[in-house]
Amino acid sequence: MSYALRSYFRSSASWRVRIALNHKGLPYETVPVHLLREGGEQHGDEHRHLNPMEQLPVLLIDGTPLAQSLAILEYLEEVHPEPSLLPRDPLARARVRQLAEIVNSGIQPVQNLFVMQQLGAQLGADRQAQQAWSRFFIERGLRALEALVAAYGGIYSVGDGISIADVCLVPQLYNARRFSVDLSHVPRLTAIEGRLASLPAFVAAHADHQPDAEVG
Amino acid sequence: MSYALRSYFRSSASWRVRIALNHKGLPYETVPVHLLREGGEQHGDEHRHLNPMEQLPVLLIDGTPLAQSLAILEYLEEVHPEPSLLPRDPLARARVRQLAEIVNSGIQPVQNLFVMQQLGAQLGADRQAQQAWSRFFIERGLRALEALVAAYGGIYSVGDGISIADVCLVPQLYNARRFSVDLSHVPRLTAIEGRLASLPAFVAAHADHQPDAEVG
Repeated sequence: MSYALRSYFRSSASWRVRIALNHKGLPYETVPVHLLREGGEQHGDEHRHLNPMEQLPVLLIDGTPLAQSLAILEYLEEVHPEPSLLPRDPLARARVRQLAEIVNSGIQPVQNLFVMQQLGAQLGADRQAQQAWSRFFIERGLRALEALVAAYGGIYSVGDGISIADVCLVPQLYNARRFSVDLSHVPRLTAIEGRLASLPAFVAAHADHQPDAEVG
Repeated sequence: MSYALRSYFRSSASWRVRIALNHKGLPYETVPVHLLREGGEQHGDEHRHLNPMEQLPVLLIDGTPLAQSLAILEYLEEVHPEPSLLPRDPLARARVRQLAEIVNSGIQPVQNLFVMQQLGAQLGADRQAQQAWSRFFIERGLRALEALVAAYGGIYSVGDGISIADVCLVPQLYNARRFSVDLSHVPRLTAIEGRLASLPAFVAAHADHQPDAEVG
Protein backbone atom coordinates (compact mmCIF):
# COMPACT_ATOMS: atom_id res chain seq x y z
CA MET A 1 0.00 0.00 0.00
CA SER A 2 1.39 3.44 -0.92
CA TYR A 3 0.70 6.49 1.21
CA ALA A 4 1.01 10.16 0.35
CA LEU A 5 0.02 12.87 2.84
CA ARG A 6 -1.20 16.25 1.72
CA SER A 7 0.06 18.27 4.64
CA TYR A 8 1.20 21.66 5.92
CA PHE A 9 4.03 21.74 8.41
CA ARG A 10 2.07 23.62 11.11
CA SER A 11 -1.33 22.00 10.46
CA SER A 12 -2.00 20.23 13.75
CA ALA A 13 -4.35 17.72 12.14
CA SER A 14 -1.71 16.81 9.54
CA TRP A 15 0.84 16.51 12.33
CA ARG A 16 -1.35 13.92 14.12
CA VAL A 17 -1.32 11.71 11.03
CA ARG A 18 2.44 12.13 10.59
CA ILE A 19 2.99 10.85 14.14
CA ALA A 20 0.78 7.81 13.55
CA LEU A 21 2.44 6.93 10.23
CA ASN A 22 5.86 7.20 11.86
CA HIS A 23 4.81 5.25 14.95
CA LYS A 24 3.62 2.40 12.77
CA GLY A 25 6.71 2.53 10.60
CA LEU A 26 4.78 3.33 7.43
CA PRO A 27 6.71 5.21 4.75
CA TYR A 28 4.85 8.04 3.06
CA GLU A 29 5.42 10.87 0.65
CA THR A 30 4.69 14.42 1.84
CA VAL A 31 2.76 16.60 -0.58
CA PRO A 32 2.90 20.14 0.83
CA VAL A 33 -0.28 22.23 0.62
CA HIS A 34 0.31 25.82 1.72
CA LEU A 35 -2.51 27.10 3.94
CA LEU A 36 -1.71 30.79 3.37
CA ARG A 37 -0.13 31.19 -0.07
CA GLU A 38 -2.48 32.57 -2.74
CA GLY A 39 -5.42 32.63 -0.33
CA GLY A 40 -4.74 29.03 0.71
CA GLU A 41 -3.94 26.17 -1.65
CA GLN A 42 -6.49 24.03 0.24
CA HIS A 43 -9.21 26.13 -1.43
CA GLY A 44 -7.90 25.44 -4.94
CA ASP A 45 -9.56 23.09 -7.43
CA GLU A 46 -7.00 20.31 -7.06
CA HIS A 47 -7.38 20.04 -3.30
CA ARG A 48 -11.14 20.62 -3.16
CA HIS A 49 -11.58 17.72 -5.56
CA LEU A 50 -9.80 15.50 -3.00
CA ASN A 51 -11.49 17.00 0.06
CA PRO A 52 -14.62 19.13 -0.40
CA MET A 53 -14.15 20.52 3.13
CA GLU A 54 -11.01 22.26 1.76
CA GLN A 55 -8.96 21.22 4.77
CA LEU A 56 -5.85 19.28 5.63
CA PRO A 57 -4.79 16.54 5.92
CA VAL A 58 -5.72 14.25 3.08
CA LEU A 59 -4.13 10.82 3.03
CA LEU A 60 -3.87 9.31 -0.43
CA ILE A 61 -4.16 5.53 -0.10
CA ASP A 62 -2.94 4.06 -3.38
CA GLY A 63 -4.28 7.31 -4.80
CA THR A 64 -7.69 7.22 -3.06
CA PRO A 65 -8.23 10.33 -0.90
CA LEU A 66 -9.25 10.09 2.75
CA ALA A 67 -9.75 13.21 4.88
CA GLN A 68 -10.48 13.93 8.56
CA SER A 69 -7.53 13.11 10.78
CA LEU A 70 -9.44 10.93 13.27
CA ALA A 71 -10.91 8.86 10.45
CA ILE A 72 -7.38 8.44 9.07
CA LEU A 73 -5.97 7.47 12.49
CA GLU A 74 -8.68 4.84 12.97
CA TYR A 75 -8.05 3.53 9.45
CA LEU A 76 -4.32 3.17 10.07
CA GLU A 77 -5.06 1.41 13.36
CA GLU A 78 -7.35 -1.08 11.65
CA VAL A 79 -5.10 -1.81 8.69
CA HIS A 80 -1.79 -1.71 10.57
CA PRO A 81 -2.74 -2.71 14.13
CA GLU A 82 0.81 -3.00 15.46
CA PRO A 83 2.33 -1.08 17.10
CA SER A 84 -1.05 -0.03 18.39
CA LEU A 85 -2.31 3.43 19.25
CA LEU A 86 -5.36 2.14 21.12
CA PRO A 87 -5.53 -0.01 24.28
CA ARG A 88 -7.43 -3.32 24.21
CA ASP A 89 -10.11 -2.73 26.83
CA PRO A 90 -13.24 -1.13 25.29
CA LEU A 91 -13.66 1.46 28.02
CA ALA A 92 -9.97 2.43 27.83
CA ARG A 93 -10.29 2.74 24.05
CA ALA A 94 -13.33 4.94 24.58
CA ARG A 95 -11.36 7.08 27.03
CA VAL A 96 -8.61 7.57 24.43
CA ARG A 97 -11.20 8.64 21.88
CA GLN A 98 -12.87 10.98 24.39
CA LEU A 99 -9.58 12.78 24.99
CA ALA A 100 -8.72 12.82 21.30
CA GLU A 101 -12.11 14.33 20.49
CA ILE A 102 -11.62 17.13 23.00
CA VAL A 103 -8.76 18.27 20.79
CA ASN A 104 -10.26 17.19 17.46
CA SER A 105 -13.77 18.56 17.92
CA GLY A 106 -13.59 20.64 21.10
CA ILE A 107 -10.54 22.82 20.49
CA GLN A 108 -9.02 22.83 17.02
CA PRO A 109 -12.14 23.41 14.88
CA VAL A 110 -13.17 26.44 16.94
CA GLN A 111 -9.80 28.16 16.85
CA ASN A 112 -8.20 27.25 13.54
CA LEU A 113 -7.01 29.62 10.84
CA PHE A 114 -10.25 29.51 8.86
CA VAL A 115 -12.39 30.38 11.89
CA MET A 116 -10.08 33.26 12.77
CA GLN A 117 -10.33 34.54 9.21
CA GLN A 118 -14.13 34.34 9.43
CA LEU A 119 -14.18 36.20 12.77
CA GLY A 120 -12.50 39.01 10.87
CA ALA A 121 -14.57 38.78 7.70
CA GLN A 122 -18.00 38.29 9.28
CA LEU A 123 -17.66 40.17 12.57
CA GLY A 124 -14.82 42.60 12.01
CA ALA A 125 -12.69 41.09 14.76
CA ASP A 126 -9.13 42.40 14.60
CA ARG A 127 -6.04 40.22 14.94
CA GLN A 128 -5.91 40.73 18.72
CA ALA A 129 -9.55 39.71 19.21
CA GLN A 130 -9.05 36.71 16.95
CA GLN A 131 -6.06 35.58 19.01
CA ALA A 132 -7.94 36.08 22.28
CA TRP A 133 -10.77 33.94 20.88
CA SER A 134 -8.39 31.11 20.00
CA ARG A 135 -6.60 31.38 23.33
CA PHE A 136 -9.93 31.13 25.18
CA PHE A 137 -10.97 27.92 23.43
CA ILE A 138 -7.53 26.33 23.73
CA GLU A 139 -7.40 27.08 27.47
CA ARG A 140 -10.90 25.74 28.01
CA GLY A 141 -10.14 22.47 26.25
CA LEU A 142 -6.74 21.96 27.84
CA ARG A 143 -8.22 22.50 31.32
CA ALA A 144 -10.70 19.70 30.64
CA LEU A 145 -7.94 17.46 29.29
CA GLU A 146 -5.83 18.09 32.38
CA ALA A 147 -8.73 16.99 34.61
CA LEU A 148 -9.27 13.82 32.60
CA VAL A 149 -5.56 12.98 32.56
CA ALA A 150 -5.54 13.40 36.34
CA ALA A 151 -8.26 10.74 36.49
CA TYR A 152 -7.19 8.34 33.73
CA GLY A 153 -3.60 9.15 32.77
CA GLY A 154 -0.39 7.36 33.60
CA ILE A 155 2.91 7.71 31.80
CA TYR A 156 0.86 8.99 28.88
CA SER A 157 -2.60 10.58 28.47
CA VAL A 158 -4.56 7.38 29.11
CA GLY A 159 -2.67 4.81 31.13
CA ASP A 160 0.88 3.82 30.26
CA GLY A 161 0.64 3.25 26.52
CA ILE A 162 1.05 5.78 23.72
CA SER A 163 -2.31 6.38 22.12
CA ILE A 164 -4.27 8.52 19.71
CA ALA A 165 -4.90 10.88 22.65
CA ASP A 166 -1.16 11.62 22.80
CA VAL A 167 -1.03 11.96 19.02
CA CYS A 168 -3.62 14.74 19.29
CA LEU A 169 -2.15 16.37 22.39
CA VAL A 170 1.34 17.19 21.12
CA PRO A 171 0.45 19.37 18.11
CA GLN A 172 -2.24 21.13 20.17
CA LEU A 173 0.30 22.13 22.82
CA TYR A 174 2.66 23.47 20.13
CA ASN A 175 -0.28 25.45 18.81
CA ALA A 176 -1.14 26.68 22.33
CA ARG A 177 2.32 28.19 22.70
CA ARG A 178 1.95 30.03 19.41
CA PHE A 179 -1.12 31.67 20.95
CA SER A 180 0.76 32.41 24.20
CA VAL A 181 -1.51 30.18 26.26
CA ASP A 182 -0.30 29.89 29.86
CA LEU A 183 0.49 26.19 30.24
CA SER A 184 1.39 26.36 33.93
CA HIS A 185 -2.20 25.26 34.74
CA VAL A 186 -1.81 22.00 32.83
CA PRO A 187 1.34 20.44 34.33
CA ARG A 188 0.24 16.87 33.66
CA LEU A 189 -0.16 17.62 29.96
CA THR A 190 3.24 19.25 29.61
CA ALA A 191 4.86 16.41 31.58
CA ILE A 192 3.37 13.88 29.15
CA GLU A 193 4.46 16.06 26.25
CA GLY A 194 7.98 16.00 27.68
CA ARG A 195 7.99 12.20 27.73
CA LEU A 196 6.76 12.05 24.12
CA ALA A 197 8.97 14.76 22.64
CA SER A 198 12.12 12.67 22.30
CA LEU A 199 10.48 9.61 20.74
CA PRO A 200 11.58 9.20 17.10
CA ALA A 201 8.01 9.09 15.72
CA PHE A 202 7.24 12.41 17.40
CA VAL A 203 10.56 14.03 16.50
CA ALA A 204 10.17 13.20 12.82
CA ALA A 205 6.58 14.48 12.79
CA HIS A 206 7.41 17.87 14.35
CA ALA A 207 6.48 20.94 12.31
CA ASP A 208 10.10 22.10 12.20
CA HIS A 209 11.23 18.87 10.57
CA GLN A 210 8.90 18.92 7.57
CA PRO A 211 10.05 19.54 4.00
CA ASP A 212 7.81 22.64 3.82
CA ALA A 213 8.87 24.06 7.22
CA GLU A 214 9.43 27.80 7.42
CA VAL A 215 11.28 29.76 10.08
CA GLY A 216 9.41 32.08 12.51
CA MET B 1 -24.73 -3.38 31.59
CA SER B 2 -26.88 -0.40 32.60
CA TYR B 3 -26.93 2.80 30.55
CA ALA B 4 -28.10 6.27 31.51
CA LEU B 5 -27.79 9.18 29.09
CA ARG B 6 -27.40 12.73 30.29
CA SER B 7 -29.12 14.47 27.42
CA TYR B 8 -31.02 17.54 26.22
CA PHE B 9 -33.80 17.01 23.73
CA ARG B 10 -32.34 19.36 21.08
CA SER B 11 -28.66 18.59 21.69
CA SER B 12 -27.60 17.10 18.37
CA ALA B 13 -24.72 15.17 19.91
CA SER B 14 -27.07 13.60 22.49
CA TRP B 15 -29.47 12.77 19.68
CA ARG B 16 -26.74 10.81 17.83
CA VAL B 17 -26.23 8.59 20.87
CA ARG B 18 -29.98 8.10 21.30
CA ILE B 19 -30.23 6.81 17.72
CA ALA B 20 -27.37 4.36 18.25
CA LEU B 21 -28.75 3.04 21.53
CA ASN B 22 -32.15 2.54 19.91
CA HIS B 23 -30.67 0.97 16.77
CA LYS B 24 -28.83 -1.58 18.88
CA GLY B 25 -31.87 -2.24 21.05
CA LEU B 26 -30.16 -1.07 24.23
CA PRO B 27 -32.47 0.22 26.96
CA TYR B 28 -31.34 3.36 28.73
CA GLU B 29 -32.55 5.91 31.20
CA THR B 30 -32.69 9.56 30.11
CA VAL B 31 -31.33 12.09 32.60
CA PRO B 32 -32.30 15.53 31.27
CA VAL B 33 -29.71 18.31 31.55
CA HIS B 34 -31.13 21.67 30.54
CA LEU B 35 -28.69 23.65 28.35
CA LEU B 36 -30.34 27.02 29.02
CA ARG B 37 -31.96 26.95 32.46
CA GLU B 38 -30.00 28.77 35.17
CA GLY B 39 -27.19 29.58 32.75
CA GLY B 40 -26.98 25.95 31.63
CA GLU B 41 -27.07 22.94 33.92
CA GLN B 42 -24.08 21.52 31.99
CA HIS B 43 -21.94 24.16 33.72
CA GLY B 44 -23.04 23.08 37.21
CA ASP B 45 -20.87 21.13 39.62
CA GLU B 46 -22.70 17.84 39.19
CA HIS B 47 -22.27 17.76 35.43
CA ARG B 48 -18.76 19.22 35.32
CA HIS B 49 -17.64 16.45 37.64
CA LEU B 50 -18.85 13.93 35.03
CA ASN B 51 -17.56 15.86 32.00
CA PRO B 52 -15.03 18.66 32.52
CA MET B 53 -15.84 19.99 29.02
CA GLU B 54 -19.29 20.90 30.44
CA GLN B 55 -21.04 19.48 27.40
CA LEU B 56 -23.62 16.88 26.48
CA PRO B 57 -24.00 13.98 26.12
CA VAL B 58 -22.55 11.90 28.91
CA LEU B 59 -23.27 8.18 28.86
CA LEU B 60 -23.15 6.57 32.28
CA ILE B 61 -21.98 2.97 31.84
CA ASP B 62 -22.80 1.17 35.08
CA GLY B 63 -22.28 4.62 36.59
CA THR B 64 -18.94 5.38 34.86
CA PRO B 65 -19.16 8.57 32.79
CA LEU B 66 -18.12 8.68 29.12
CA ALA B 67 -18.38 11.87 27.08
CA GLN B 68 -17.86 12.85 23.41
CA SER B 69 -20.52 11.40 21.17
CA LEU B 70 -18.17 9.81 18.63
CA ALA B 71 -16.24 8.07 21.40
CA ILE B 72 -19.56 6.80 22.76
CA LEU B 73 -20.71 5.61 19.32
CA GLU B 74 -17.45 3.70 18.78
CA TYR B 75 -17.74 2.20 22.25
CA LEU B 76 -21.29 0.98 21.61
CA GLU B 77 -20.17 -0.46 18.29
CA GLU B 78 -17.33 -2.39 19.94
CA VAL B 79 -19.33 -3.70 22.89
CA HIS B 80 -22.59 -4.34 20.99
CA PRO B 81 -21.45 -5.00 17.41
CA GLU B 82 -24.83 -6.09 16.06
CA PRO B 83 -26.78 -4.55 14.47
CA SER B 84 -23.73 -2.69 13.21
CA LEU B 85 -23.34 1.00 12.45
CA LEU B 86 -20.08 0.50 10.55
CA PRO B 87 -19.41 -1.46 7.36
CA ARG B 88 -16.78 -4.23 7.34
CA ASP B 89 -14.31 -2.95 4.75
CA PRO B 90 -11.65 -0.71 6.33
CA LEU B 91 -11.87 1.99 3.67
CA ALA B 92 -15.68 2.05 3.86
CA ARG B 93 -15.43 2.32 7.66
CA ALA B 94 -13.01 5.21 7.19
CA ARG B 95 -15.42 6.88 4.79
CA VAL B 96 -18.21 6.63 7.38
CA ARG B 97 -15.95 8.22 9.96
CA GLN B 98 -14.88 10.95 7.53
CA LEU B 99 -18.51 11.94 6.95
CA ALA B 100 -19.34 11.68 10.65
CA GLU B 101 -16.40 13.93 11.51
CA ILE B 102 -17.55 16.59 9.06
CA VAL B 103 -20.59 16.97 11.30
CA ASN B 104 -18.87 16.19 14.60
CA SER B 105 -15.78 18.36 14.19
CA GLY B 106 -16.45 20.42 11.06
CA ILE B 107 -19.93 21.79 11.71
CA GLN B 108 -21.40 21.37 15.18
CA PRO B 109 -18.50 22.61 17.35
CA VAL B 110 -18.22 25.86 15.36
CA GLN B 111 -21.91 26.73 15.49
CA ASN B 112 -23.23 25.39 18.76
CA LEU B 113 -24.93 27.35 21.51
CA PHE B 114 -21.76 27.96 23.51
CA VAL B 115 -19.89 29.37 20.51
CA MET B 116 -22.82 31.65 19.68
CA GLN B 117 -22.87 32.85 23.28
CA GLN B 118 -19.14 33.56 23.06
CA LEU B 119 -19.54 35.47 19.79
CA GLY B 120 -21.83 37.76 21.74
CA ALA B 121 -19.76 37.95 24.91
CA GLN B 122 -16.31 38.32 23.31
CA LEU B 123 -17.09 40.14 20.08
CA GLY B 124 -20.42 41.83 20.69
CA ALA B 125 -22.15 39.91 17.90
CA ASP B 126 -25.92 40.35 18.08
CA ARG B 127 -28.40 37.52 17.66
CA GLN B 128 -28.66 38.07 13.92
CA ALA B 129 -24.89 37.96 13.41
CA GLN B 130 -24.65 34.85 15.59
CA GLN B 131 -27.30 33.12 13.50
CA ALA B 132 -25.60 34.14 10.24
CA TRP B 133 -22.35 32.68 11.60
CA SER B 134 -23.98 29.35 12.40
CA ARG B 135 -25.80 29.26 9.07
CA PHE B 136 -22.50 29.86 7.23
CA PHE B 137 -20.73 26.94 8.90
CA ILE B 138 -23.69 24.59 8.55
CA GLU B 139 -24.01 25.38 4.83
CA ARG B 140 -20.30 24.92 4.27
CA GLY B 141 -20.25 21.51 5.94
CA LEU B 142 -23.44 20.26 4.32
CA ARG B 143 -22.14 21.22 0.87
CA ALA B 144 -19.06 19.07 1.49
CA LEU B 145 -21.22 16.21 2.78
CA GLU B 146 -23.43 16.39 -0.31
CA ALA B 147 -20.36 16.07 -2.56
CA LEU B 148 -19.09 13.06 -0.62
CA VAL B 149 -22.48 11.38 -0.60
CA ALA B 150 -22.61 11.87 -4.39
CA ALA B 151 -19.34 9.93 -4.58
CA TYR B 152 -19.80 7.29 -1.90
CA GLY B 153 -23.47 7.19 -0.92
CA GLY B 154 -26.18 4.72 -1.82
CA ILE B 155 -29.45 4.22 -0.01
CA TYR B 156 -27.76 5.90 2.94
CA SER B 157 -24.78 8.24 3.41
CA VAL B 158 -22.11 5.61 2.69
CA GLY B 159 -23.34 2.71 0.59
CA ASP B 160 -26.55 0.91 1.43
CA GLY B 161 -26.18 0.31 5.17
CA ILE B 162 -27.19 2.59 8.02
CA SER B 163 -24.04 3.93 9.65
CA ILE B 164 -22.63 6.41 12.12
CA ALA B 165 -22.59 8.92 9.24
CA ASP B 166 -26.40 8.76 9.10
CA VAL B 167 -26.61 8.96 12.87
CA CYS B 168 -24.75 12.28 12.69
CA LEU B 169 -26.57 13.59 9.62
CA VAL B 170 -30.14 13.53 10.89
CA PRO B 171 -29.79 15.79 13.97
CA GLN B 172 -27.59 18.20 11.96
CA LEU B 173 -30.31 18.63 9.33
CA TYR B 174 -32.90 19.31 12.04
CA ASN B 175 -30.52 21.89 13.42
CA ALA B 176 -29.98 23.38 9.94
CA ARG B 177 -33.72 24.03 9.60
CA ARG B 178 -33.76 25.82 12.94
CA PHE B 179 -31.18 28.20 11.45
CA SER B 180 -33.20 28.55 8.21
CA VAL B 181 -30.48 26.96 6.10
CA ASP B 182 -31.59 26.49 2.49
CA LEU B 183 -31.48 22.72 2.02
CA SER B 184 -32.40 22.76 -1.67
CA HIS B 185 -28.68 22.56 -2.50
CA VAL B 186 -28.26 19.25 -0.66
CA PRO B 187 -30.96 17.02 -2.22
CA ARG B 188 -29.04 13.80 -1.63
CA LEU B 189 -28.82 14.53 2.08
CA THR B 190 -32.51 15.31 2.46
CA ALA B 191 -33.42 12.21 0.41
CA ILE B 192 -31.36 10.05 2.78
CA GLU B 193 -32.93 11.83 5.74
CA GLY B 194 -36.34 10.97 4.28
CA ARG B 195 -35.45 7.29 4.15
CA LEU B 196 -34.21 7.34 7.76
CA ALA B 197 -36.99 9.42 9.30
CA SER B 198 -39.55 6.64 9.59
CA LEU B 199 -37.24 4.01 11.07
CA PRO B 200 -38.20 3.26 14.69
CA ALA B 201 -34.70 3.96 16.08
CA PHE B 202 -34.75 7.40 14.50
CA VAL B 203 -38.36 8.17 15.42
CA ALA B 204 -37.78 7.37 19.08
CA ALA B 205 -34.58 9.46 19.15
CA HIS B 206 -36.20 12.60 17.69
CA ALA B 207 -36.00 15.75 19.81
CA ASP B 208 -39.79 16.02 19.95
CA HIS B 209 -40.11 12.57 21.48
CA GLN B 210 -37.85 13.09 24.48
CA PRO B 211 -39.12 13.33 28.06
CA ASP B 212 -37.67 16.86 28.32
CA ALA B 213 -39.05 18.09 24.96
CA GLU B 214 -40.48 21.60 24.85
CA VAL B 215 -42.74 23.13 22.23
CA GLY B 216 -41.48 25.88 19.86
